[in-house]
Amino acid sequence: MKPRIAIDMDDVLANTAGKFVQMYLDGLHGRPPAHTLEQLQQESLRELLAEPDFKAIHDTVYEPGFFRDIPVMDGAKEVLPRLAEKYDLFITTAATEFRNSFVDKYDWLAEHFPQISWRNIVFCGDKSIILADVMIDDMPYNLASFSGETKLLFHALHNRTESRFTRVNSWADVERVLL
Amino acid sequence: MKPRIAIDMDDVLANTAGKFVQMYLDGLHGRPPAHTLEQLQQESLRELLAEPDFKAIHDTVYEPGFFRDIPVMDGAKEVLPRLAEKYDLFITTAATEFRNSFVDKYDWLAEHFPQISWRNIVFCGDKSIILADVMIDDMPYNLASFSGETKLLFHALHNRTESRFTRVNSWADVERVLL
Repeated sequence: MKPRIAIDMDDVLANTAGKFVQMYLDGLHGRPPAHTLEQLQQESLRELLAEPDFKAIHDTVYEPGFFRDIPVMDGAKEVLPRLAEKYDLFITTAATEFRNSFVDKYDWLAEHFPQISWRNIVFCGDKSIILADVMIDDMPYNLASFSGETKLLFHALHNRTESRFTRVNSWADVERVLL
Repeated sequence: MKPRIAIDMDDVLANTAGKFVQMYLDGLHGRPPAHTLEQLQQESLRELLAEPDFKAIHDTVYEPGFFRDIPVMDGAKEVLPRLAEKYDLFITTAATEFRNSFVDKYDWLAEHFPQISWRNIVFCGDKSIILADVMIDDMPYNLASFSGETKLLFHALHNRTESRFTRVNSWADVERVLL
């Protein structure tokens, strides 16, 4: 049996932070942006924005459609098929917090990763329920509660000070570590 | 930490077979029923019906709304809160086969088991991804691939000849075994 990898969606397969940044640059919070793209690449929106502006952008996650048009993370489409030769891939995403996310996430996966069977998709909340050998996730608390052997922290601005896990900066990095 | 139970929905928390039988008795397959309720309690619809009749009833699982109005299994509402005192309960349901089932299953749980947090809901396909101590399921293949210690087969007509697992005939039976 192949070893199993549990792969997160937001900020791992999907560039969700990138979508939020674009929404901010487009003035979705109701005014012209006060920060440049360069600043937005150094610190997270949660750090840079006042609470009402952050909330105006972030709370769109609850709306139908939010998760349907997120850009695919660079390199994911190329690396996943190569990982699948050696590993059993499961997509494990904390979707149950967002009632309207299910169909969007399902259709997004069908569009961008049609090779992933419904059998290998997991919409969950607390990821400590996941049994796998490897987890790739951007959230330190998911890796902290993961029982498997290999914990890869996918780099994101919000996790840049975390040092407990092996950090991967990109999908090319994931490939170097796992293949 | 409390031991963890993975609880299935269809034919465990929800009386899905009962809904199918009622649809058949209501003539949803397009003609008066040829079998009595007594016969339908001895053999499963898959055994009793000709393929087109079975398909006419069974394929409604793909329609929006199918999973929203299923009756709750007798005793589940009473026993779950008592199990929750000693166990950590997760609802683990093979929902990803049915794109239209997510919101219906989510809303059904919110209506009938509002004490279950989104953190403890898992919509999956292959349940071998589930890490728990106990699994309660009506599908022998889910129990066969489960890595936990205690495997309880919730009785259903379709599993009545299965003998590899501890059979529980009702939620009262689950309570007797686990409490």
